[in-house]
Formats: sequence, structure tokens, C-alpha cells
Amino acid sequence: MALQTLFLFTLLLFASKAAAQLDFCVADLSSPATPAGFPCKNPAKLTVDDFVFSSALAVPANTSNPNKATASAVIVTQFPGLNGLGTSLARVDMDVGGSFPMHSHPGASELLLVTEGTIYAGFISSANAVYAKNLTKGDVIIMPRGLLHFAVNYGKEPAAGIVSFSSPTPGLQTTNRALFGNNLPTEVVQATTFIDQDQIKKLKAAFGGTN
Amino acid sequence: MALQTLFLFTLLLFASKAAAQLDFCVADLSSPATPAGFPCKNPAKLTVDDFVFSSALAVPANTSNPNKATASAVIVTQFPGLNGLGTSLARVDMDVGGSFPMHSHPGASELLLVTEGTIYAGFISSANAVYAKNLTKGDVIIMPRGLLHFAVNYGKEPAAGIVSFSSPTPGLQTTNRALFGNNLPTEVVQATTFIDQDQIKKLKAAFGGTN
Amino acid sequence: MALQTLFLFTLLLFASKAAAQLDFCVADLSSPATPAGFPCKNPAKLTVDDFVFSSALAVPANTSNPNKATASAVIVTQFPGLNGLGTSLARVDMDVGGSFPMHSHPGASELLLVTEGTIYAGFISSANAVYAKNLTKGDVIIMPRGLLHFAVNYGKEPAAGIVSFSSPTPGLQTTNRALFGNNLPTEVVQATTFIDQDQIKKLKAAFGGTN
Amino acid sequence: MALQTLFLFTLLLFASKAAAQLDFCVADLSSPATPAGFPCKNPAKLTVDDFVFSSALAVPANTSNPNKATASAVIVTQFPGLNGLGTSLARVDMDVGGSFPMHSHPGASELLLVTEGTIYAGFISSANAVYAKNLTKGDVIIMPRGLLHFAVNYGKEPAAGIVSFSSPTPGLQTTNRALFGNNLPTEVVQATTFIDQDQIKKLKAAFGGTN
Amino acid sequence: MALQTLFLFTLLLFASKAAAQLDFCVADLSSPATPAGFPCKNPAKLTVDDFVFSSALAVPANTSNPNKATASAVIVTQFPGLNGLGTSLARVDMDVGGSFPMHSHPGASELLLVTEGTIYAGFISSANAVYAKNLTKGDVIIMPRGLLHFAVNYGKEPAAGIVSFSSPTPGLQTTNRALFGNNLPTEVVQATTFIDQDQIKKLKAAFGGTN
Amino acid sequence: MALQTLFLFTLLLFASKAAAQLDFCVADLSSPATPAGFPCKNPAKLTVDDFVFSSALAVPANTSNPNKATASAVIVTQFPGLNGLGTSLARVDMDVGGSFPMHSHPGASELLLVTEGTIYAGFISSANAVYAKNLTKGDVIIMPRGLLHFAVNYGKEPAAGIVSFSSPTPGLQTTNRALFGNNLPTEVVQATTFIDQDQIKKLKAAFGGTN
Repeated sequence: MALQTLFLFTLLLFASKAAAQLDFCVADLSSPATPAGFPCKNPAKLTVDDFVFSSALAVPANTSNPNKATASAVIVTQFPGLNGLGTSLARVDMDVGGSFPMHSHPGASELLLVTEGTIYAGFISSANAVYAKNLTKGDVIIMPRGLLHFAVNYGKEPAAGIVSFSSPTPGLQTTNRALFGNNLPTEVVQATTFIDQDQIKKLKAAFGGTN
Repeated sequence: MALQTLFLFTLLLFASKAAAQLDFCVADLSSPATPAGFPCKNPAKLTVDDFVFSSALAVPANTSNPNKATASAVIVTQFPGLNGLGTSLARVDMDVGGSFPMHSHPGASELLLVTEGTIYAGFISSANAVYAKNLTKGDVIIMPRGLLHFAVNYGKEPAAGIVSFSSPTPGLQTTNRALFGNNLPTEVVQATTFIDQDQIKKLKAAFGGTN
Repeated sequence: MALQTLFLFTLLLFASKAAAQLDFCVADLSSPATPAGFPCKNPAKLTVDDFVFSSALAVPANTSNPNKATASAVIVTQFPGLNGLGTSLARVDMDVGGSFPMHSHPGASELLLVTEGTIYAGFISSANAVYAKNLTKGDVIIMPRGLLHFAVNYGKEPAAGIVSFSSPTPGLQTTNRALFGNNLPTEVVQATTFIDQDQIKKLKAAFGGTN
Repeated sequence: MALQTLFLFTLLLFASKAAAQLDFCVADLSSPATPAGFPCKNPAKLTVDDFVFSSALAVPANTSNPNKATASAVIVTQFPGLNGLGTSLARVDMDVGGSFPMHSHPGASELLLVTEGTIYAGFISSANAVYAKNLTKGDVIIMPRGLLHFAVNYGKEPAAGIVSFSSPTPGLQTTNRALFGNNLPTEVVQATTFIDQDQIKKLKAAFGGTN
Repeated sequence: MALQTLFLFTLLLFASKAAAQLDFCVADLSSPATPAGFPCKNPAKLTVDDFVFSSALAVPANTSNPNKATASAVIVTQFPGLNGLGTSLARVDMDVGGSFPMHSHPGASELLLVTEGTIYAGFISSANAVYAKNLTKGDVIIMPRGLLHFAVNYGKEPAAGIVSFSSPTPGLQTTNRALFGNNLPTEVVQATTFIDQDQIKKLKAAFGGTN
Repeated sequence: MALQTLFLFTLLLFASKAAAQLDFCVADLSSPATPAGFPCKNPAKLTVDDFVFSSALAVPANTSNPNKATASAVIVTQFPGLNGLGTSLARVDMDVGGSFPMHSHPGASELLLVTEGTIYAGFISSANAVYAKNLTKGDVIIMPRGLLHFAVNYGKEPAAGIVSFSSPTPGLQTTNRALFGNNLPTEVVQATTFIDQDQIKKLKAAFGGTN
């Protein structure tokens, strides 16, 4: 039947490589990245499994750690299909008394949806205002890009949430790891935070920092 | 004490209006939008409630409708704090046999995380390849920006999921509503889809279309 | 004369590789793409022919096909010089009674300038409104990114037009090819469009679809 | 029939203002612009005529002027529907011996499609290489953003072309108008171009410049 | 003379409002901002003084404060001409022993050029690596967007530098002000930094924090 | 101690490659560029010296050339750490009577801070308005992207300044080099600038142009 051959004919110029390459760009993580993300895998060899990630995001993670809290992130280096798409996900689990320490994401804004329990969460603005609240199941809070934010479970049951990021590569900088968990000299930490040297040394010991 | 006054002095030039306005831009929905989003509310008057949305995203929506499926979206017009931030959320609920009809989001890529049950979901590329799979709890699937996608619950229990979009304004175009739910003349639908006129008229009746 | 050596001296730091690489980036189509486009050819080896495409855009294409319409697109995979530049072109030819079926471009907005005859063209918005009109020679219509649009020649003479896209990789998704021209199972098409199975099977036969 | 009410129900959260505002943003030219374009007209009041521009792009413009060449541009200030969409159009007409003087578009790359006659056209790169060629009907040439380019009709018949820009606001800076058509003092023009003062004064007289 | 009137004629369509509005967008700081910046002042009323800022960037600032260091920033709220342009400036002065405390700019990458003395400066990456060095006059260091960085003058003479930002609105979050200079409760700071409560209370007293 | 192991555990999913690759992308200049910049060096092998450039930006450059002025630019091809970061720097030195000829940067807006002496500088808009002023030490002037601008030292002492660009690859097109310093035929220069052929030939001789 004639209809069948029609589109093969008329749309020839759009076909082949171009078509797929503009729809998506599944990362080839073995090649060097660029400022816009990783090079694309050959689109002709992709299957549905390049677009599906079977993660543990639907079940609680183990929180038996000093933080009593665990974040399970699905970003481009775990899920290459996210490359170039502008979003990624994470799941957070917090035992009673658990906390996510003060941190920021230099590359993304974040939405946190509470799915279990209650979470006291908030962020601090450039104008140094604190925006924090005790959130219950179903609440969504915004953590704008690059700003310090935190979460604590002051409730009586474990809490959980789903996080949406505005980038496949949100990045993560945790304040206490950055200050106390590397080789930044104690005197420099002191000079740039005004925290006492004794306190700095105590926390460096805890976080594995040196100098 | 001297430390206290220090920062007020040294950082004066960064302070006030500027600081907050670059961190975020909570939408004033009563003003006309621009290509980059809505004008910002006065940052000095914002409270934490401008950054928190108490939605029904943690509980199943009512799915007693012909689709047996409901999407509850939290985008900028519901949650003005999302303005300019590059991401938004939705919850989907699907009864047994429920489906989300073929549709696309012209303004965003989408990630769907299955949180309950199983969902058969997929998308169709510019190269006309189908990428579809039966997803179980914890699976994440990518729906690239602007491409047709769908979801059906062929399982034996209700299904649910959380959606992350790469924009606060993803947009939505459902194929059958676009073809059969407005005043586009039957002859034009026929000429541009090759669907029979009888079929078009039947579906126009179902979706409230005219002409 | 002294002037001659001046600029070689003063502008040395801007010279060579950098200068050309920021002006343009002619695609090396043999290398994998990235989310921002293809890697650039060596700028030192480019000639004017890398920036000129001798296409058939000035003469009518053959429209003796079932659609009675042909689109001739000049996008990055035909014309590597377009890489990274943010625009591309196409020519459309429509015989009397010809049509471009309902489709969308996930990656670009489109302008259609009618250069011969009359074309009835339009698009459907996210709010499901139809914006359509009979266009005559010299009219320009906008088809916003990602939205379904179409064109039909209801006139008494052949029609033609020039299309400008807002991207070198506009992409193309034609509704009937997406629904009926691949291996998407009939029952899934039915569940996600509400079109009758008989109709689906008839169109699958026409468009080469299976399942 | 039940199907009819379904979508009204399930898609409620996407409806109204949001839907249309993310698809397009027709400029309200009476309000101040922003860095991303003009504020949007109320989407509820738009008609198809907001997306259609009935220009003179299909007929030759009058070229009886000293340049023997005319450009008819359709950019956002003529056609408010282009606001935020990333592309615009122009038509060029050149009589025998006509020319478009050396100029650049600070805000857009340009594609020129020759539709009638022959045009000698080209651009000059940051590395000071000249990419120029005699183009015939159907040829397309690229003029990258911000670079000087020109066109001359050395043929024996009038020439015409269609231009696609990568922005609704390409801007235009013509070298001789910039140097000789305003109040920039002759001594400054001399010091920054090395053109002789006599020549500058002669051209200032021709282009209406002072000082 | 005929040349004079030529361009007025041929370029009419580009003229007036559009031309200026696409070149720049001087902020009207009295109107609400948008995600892309402030609305533009009427371009017809601009003078050169809208594009020139007479700041104190060429002379050392007073550093007689507890930090012994002062930053003088020229961002969009001081210099409205920067609106939408993608860059801004600052000058830094550091007395002997002075320091800029640990901070980040959520909205911009930064380049610091040392113009006087020596500055020990560096940043900490998402991978928790420290990149720091003693810089001398003429050295430039990069501080990538959103990452913690600092500077200390361990030299024997005052130091100074010029800073270039990649945005007119870089933002600023200083770690000790964010942790100790607002009403974030002591117990929350403790739970999210692991700093001892005694230390927190001591620093809250110094930085004017409460709770 | 337990705290030490905590973060290694909880933040595992963010670690390694991903973390660094989203913070920055130091250029591997030996690989082909892409439209978004060069591929990144292996982040695991970077040291602080990849982020520090020891240039001559703090000392006056030699200005004994016909222009009596020298620009020393630090852009991505000199300083690979700038890749993808959105800003770069330059130093300008101008002897008494020195000038920077009329030029534009197709890829960046520019800020010029005068650090020594006085500089008469300005730009010309798309609307052909001249915005120019005599700047003294400490003044900052804006040169918007893609527009012609210039600088002359009419003062009685040498002048200097620091330039900030809004891109790591600003590009540079100098009007007289573009018109007179390459193989663009004299007749084409004449036809597209209206400068007399004698003048063109004289300047071609000075700037090394042919044809």
C-alpha cells in the first residue's frame, strides 16, 4: 500500500543519526566529559535499558551509621541516560534522631518531598535568613542552588523522602567534611572560620582530616 | 564585641536586595510572565511558607475516573517558589487497568520513579523507535523532552510513582485530547492523521470535540 | 611599514586556535556527539565550503508521493557548519490536496513562510486551543517548540514555503508514524489513545507497524 | 459519555494559565523588556493572528535607493509572537550592482538562502580569515554571530534571499554607519581606524555624521 | 547627498526600540526582578553614565575591621548597567594578617587577580580536595561556582586584588555568618555540623546569632 | 572513631568521578573543542596549578609598538582552567597617545576598570548611538557583547586597566584588520564600506592586506 512508503520518502532528510541524537544523549562514561556533559553513546545501539535504572529508591536504605541517615542518589555517573537532560533523583532515609549535615549543591536546586515521618529541614539565604520548618508527609520544600541546607529527624519514627534535582550533576559540598575532613591546615581553618583550634583538631580527628 | 560588627562592614556591598534576589525568585503570579518566568515577589517579605508546599503527594489520589489514573502535578502555578529553579514534581496513581494516555511535555524531560506496583511505560523517539518496559517498584525511567510517552498498569494491584521534571513549567499535550477534544475540523484531523472520519467523529464525541 | 607589524604584536594572545574556535564549530560528524552538539573540525583546515550548502532549497521537490507533500530539511547532519549555531532551515512543497501530517519538533520552534500558493496551517497548545489559519503568499506562522502542528494545501495550485528552526537539531515526531509505524503493541496503542483496535490495525498495515 | 469528563478531572493541575504560558510568550511591547525578552500578553486573549504575520516577505522590496538593496526584517518588534522563541526571519532584495554593506549582528547567527539570482557573500573570522563565495539560487551560507559579513550582487539580474536568524532580536551594526553616521569625533575615528581624516570627513558628510 | 538617506530607508525595520533593547538592558531597580534579571530602563533615555560606574575600585579600602580585609563589589544592584550581561567585578584589600572567611558564591564562578602583596587562597571541591596556594602579584586563581573558598594574607605587607565574576549577581554565603549569625537554633547547628554547643554559643555571641 | 567512617558510607553515591566533573572542567586543549568548550582533563590528576595562572597581569606590558598600546588576555587557550566557567580576564596598557582600535568581541560582554591614568573609551549601539567618556582611575565602563568599541589615551601619562569578559572565549574582531589586513578584494571593501579605493589600498599596504 502506498501510504507505507510515503514517509520513508518525504522525511528522508530528518532520518538516521540526527533524529536520535537530538532527542537524548546517553553518556559514554568511559570518554572524557565536556562542560555540557559526557559524549553520547551510539544512538543506534541503545535499548530501553539505557533509559531505565533499577535502583533501590523504593525501599529504605540502611541507616545504621553515625548520621543515622542515608542518601541514595541517582545522578549521571550512576545512570548515564540522565546526561544532558537537566534533572536527577535521590532517596533519603533518616532514622529517629538522624540528620543530614549542613551542605550545598553547587550545581542544582533541590526539591525534597517527605514520604514518611517528619523532617525538620531548611536553608540559609545569601541575606543570611533562615527558612526552616518541620515538614510532614506530603510536604515539599525548596533548597535553592548553592545555598546551605540541612535536615534533622526530630520525630518519633523513621522518616524518608524523594529528592528532585535541577541537574544530572548536582554536586555536593558538606560543610564539616570540607572544613575538617581533608588536609586544609588547622591554622587556615581557624583564620577563615573563627572556630577555636581545639575544636578544629577534635573534628579533624573525627572526620579524618590532617594538618 | 568586635567580630560581630565586622561582617556588617565588609560585606555591605553584597547585602540587601541583591543577595536574596539572586538566590531565588518566588513568582508573583498576579503579574504577567516573561520568557524566563514570572516576576519575583519582594524577597524581604518571604517566609518559609513561600518555599514549602503542602500537597497531597504522599497519599494516593482518587482514581475513580474513566482513565483509572490521576496525575497530581506541583508546578509553578501551584507552587510559586519553583519559579526560575529548573525543576518540578508530580505524583501519579494508577488503578488496575488504568493508563496515562499518549502525551508529551514540550517544556521538560521527565523521570518516573515507580513507588508502588508495576507500570508498563515507555516513549517513542524521533527515529520512531519504541523504548518501553514493565517497571517494578524502585525502577526509574526517562522520558526525554518533547517525545510521546505513556504508562499502563497491567498489574494486579494499584500502582503509584513520583515524577521529576526538568522545568517548573513542563507543559502537557495529550494526543487524543489534541486531536479529538477541540474544534479542529474532522476533515483536517483526517487529512493530517489518516484516521477514518467515522473513528474521528466517535472520539470527538467522547472527548468533547466539535466540527 | 610599522603599522603592519603592530597588530601581530599586540593581539598575539588572542590569536591562533582560540580565535576561530569561539566563532564557530563546524561539526565533525564522524565523532560522537555531546549534549551541546558535535566536536568541531580543526578550524585551521576549514574553507568557505564548510559554511556553504548547495541544496535544492530553491527549486520545488518532487511531491509525487501519497502525502503529495515533501519537506527538504537542512539540519546539522546535512550541513555540519550549523553545529552549535542555533538555527537551521527547510523547504516545504505541497501539491494540491497535499498535507504535512500532525507532528512536533521536540527540539525547536519553527517559523513557516509561505512563498507560493496557500497553506492552511496551525498548531495546538498545551491548553488544547487550536491556532490555525489559511495562509497566503508572504504570511509567516509560528509553531512553538514541542507542540503538534500541521499543514494542508486546500488551494487550487501547488504551495511552497521556507521554514526557519530555532535549533540545528529540531527533531521530528509524526503522530501517525509514532502510533502506527513501529512495534508498539496494538493493545498499548488502544489503551493510550482510545482509538479502536480495528482502526489501529488498519493504520499499522499502512504505516508498516507490527504487533 | 464518561470519557469526556475524564481528562477535565485528571489533568486539572496542569490546566489554565500555566499550560499556555509555558508554550509561548507573545510580547506585550508596551511594557518594559527584560534580559530574556518582553513580558507576555495574557494567553487567554490570544488568537491565531498573534502567531501569524502578514508581511511582504514574498514579494520583492523597492530597491531604488543608493545601496540598490533592501532588507525586510521580521523580528520581535514587528512580530510580537517571536518573543522568547529563538528565531526570526528577513527577506533581502538586491538590484544589479546592489550591496549590503559590511555589518554584524551582535545577537544572532544568520543563514542566508539565495532564492533569486547570484549573491557574492561572506564573513570574516576572529582569526581574520575571509570566507566568501559567489552563491547561486538554492545555496545557503552561514554568518556566525557577531562577525562582520557582507553581500554584493555582481550578477546580471536582481537577486533575492531569505534569512533565518538564531534570535528574535539579532541586532545590527553596520560598519560605515557606526564609524561615519553619528557624532563620534573625527579625531577618534582616525585614532581608532587609521583612516585619513579627509576620507572620514567625506564619509561623515555622506552618512550624516557630525564632529 | 543620496548616500545619506539610504540607510535610513533600507534598515528601517531594524531601527528604534528593537535595536537598543537587544544590545543591553540597563536595570530599572525600582521594578520587581525576574529570574533573568531586572526589567530594562527605557533605552531611549540612556546616557553614557548608565554604562560607567565611578567606584573606589582603584584605591585601597579601609581595612581597619576585625577581619583586616574588605571586599568592594560592583554588582547589578550597585551598577544597573550590568543587568543581563553575565559578569561583574570586585576589589579586595587585605591588611597583614587579614582574611576573607570561608564562603561561596551560589551564582557565579570567580577569578581573583593579585595586584599587590601575596595572598594564600584556595577552594575545596565536591570531591573534598583542597586546591590552595600562596599567590603573588600577577597570579590569577579560579574559584568555581558554588564551592567554598577563602583567602588569607600571611605576607608582610598589605595585599590587594581584582575579582571577576561570571554573573552580575554572584551571591555570597559566608560559612560562619550562615552558621552563627542568625536565629538557627544551637541544637540544629550542633546536629548538622557536629561542632560542640559551647563553641557554637561562643561564635553566636561573636556574630550576633540568637537561639 | 565512628564519625570518621560515616560520610564515606552515606555519601558514596556522590563520590568519585561525578563530584569533580560537575564542579569544573579544565580543558584538554589537545582534543577537539565542542560548541560548549573543550573536553575536560581527568579530574583525578588535577593540582592547584591547573587553577592558577602566573601571568604578567600585574606589571605593565611593553607598549613600544605603533599602537602604543598592548592587551594581554588570559582566555581559555592560555589558561585551560577557565573552560566552561563563563569568565576571563585581560590587562591593557596604553602609552600617552596610544589607542585600541575599533573592535568587537563576538562572544562576550566586557567590563574595563581603569587602574592607571585616564582612558577615553566608548561603544556604539545597534541604534548607532555613541556612548563614550573620559574615564579616570577607578572608573568601570561596560562594552556590551558584539558591539564596536574603542579606547584612546589622550592623557599626559601612561594608562592601564583590567578587563573582565563574560566568557572564557570572547573572540576579537578589529575593524581595520578585518577590512584591510586580509585578502578581501579592494573592490569588495569599497562596495561594502564606501571608502575610496585609494584609501583602501593605502591601508591594505599598512596592514598587510592583499588583492
